[in-house]
Amino acid sequence: MRGARSRAEILKIAMRLASREGLEAISIGRIAEKVGMSKSGLFGHFKSKENLQREILETVADRFAKRVFVPAMKEPRGLPRLKAIHQNWIRWIQGSQDFPGGCPLIAAASELDDQPGLIKDYLKEKQLLLIHNLQKAAQLTKDEGHFHADVDVERLGWYWYSLILGYHHYKRLLNHPRADEFAEHAFDELLQRCQKKELSS
Amino acid sequence: MRGARSRAEILKIAMRLASREGLEAISIGRIAEKVGMSKSGLFGHFKSKENLQREILETVADRFAKRVFVPAMKEPRGLPRLKAIHQNWIRWIQGSQDFPGGCPLIAAASELDDQPGLIKDYLKEKQLLLIHNLQKAAQLTKDEGHFHADVDVERLGWYWYSLILGYHHYKRLLNHPRADEFAEHAFDELLQRCQKKELSS
Repeated sequence: MRGARSRAEILKIAMRLASREGLEAISIGRIAEKVGMSKSGLFGHFKSKENLQREILETVADRFAKRVFVPAMKEPRGLPRLKAIHQNWIRWIQGSQDFPGGCPLIAAASELDDQPGLIKDYLKEKQLLLIHNLQKAAQLTKDEGHFHADVDVERLGWYWYSLILGYHHYKRLLNHPRADEFAEHAFDELLQRCQKKELSS
Repeated sequence: MRGARSRAEILKIAMRLASREGLEAISIGRIAEKVGMSKSGLFGHFKSKENLQREILETVADRFAKRVFVPAMKEPRGLPRLKAIHQNWIRWIQGSQDFPGGCPLIAAASELDDQPGLIKDYLKEKQLLLIHNLQKAAQLTKDEGHFHADVDVERLGWYWYSLILGYHHYKRLLNHPRADEFAEHAFDELLQRCQKKELSS
């Protein structure tokens, strides 16, 4: 039990560091220093830097699911649930105590896109799962009759993700005064366009 | 002359490294090793790590302007020029020999958004200039009568940038088979919506 709690504590600290400085800043030595443990103690927990990075991404992805998707499941299928996912995602990007440096998944995506290897593959897998879940929520919205029957859910997923990335950029890097307005407006427009025939394949 | 050429060569190598591994991976020692110079020789050129990072961003931003905006200036004002900027930007993201790791400016944006300091300020300034130039091209398109007179160019600029970020994400990280189709289609739709009254403030 004690070992398990300590592992979770280490991951929490490592996650905060990755949020601020990126996954590349993570090393066994650096984290050992941060948590006040020996390098060999930390090595005993995680075996390698790559494994530690993978577990950080896993922890972030779990938390993302708990904050963004799980609470939205309480909403009725279709449009209400889709809107809840979006609102939770926006709040996630606005930041929390856990992630003082913004969404570690978005940061890792630009950081790792050209570093082939296990960590990139793992991140890609997590991103594909996220996109799959967005598309599933969109498909249910079609099935409920809240969207036009011809909506291309894959295309909708890409549009949706693009708006989120644009919001992240304007909000976190530029601190742009209209970031919230742009993102809110754009999501409403996207939903309206899906009710017509505009996002067909 | 020899000193000047050598400085440009160093920056080119440093830029390639930053493209693959991010700006945080840049240090005087690391670049000295890559170019086969002494640390003190490199220090003589750049004075500090921060200054080296700043010059890398400057070099990338110059190149971006030369590849994306300058050739578009040959096109007539308005829609033709706007489309040329977009095409050049898409090609820029698809990559070049100089940037094997994708757009270093997008990577630096997620990397630095929560690291207050001179480099973040500098990047933010460059990003605001880019957005200003996008908005200027959009304003000229309005002035030429190619867009509806009520188009909110600031909002258009954000939409445009969001599509580019979405394209970058799907293309470079996920290697998604429909990335090109999505981005091309979305830009055409954005232009069509600007011809109506849909992107008003």
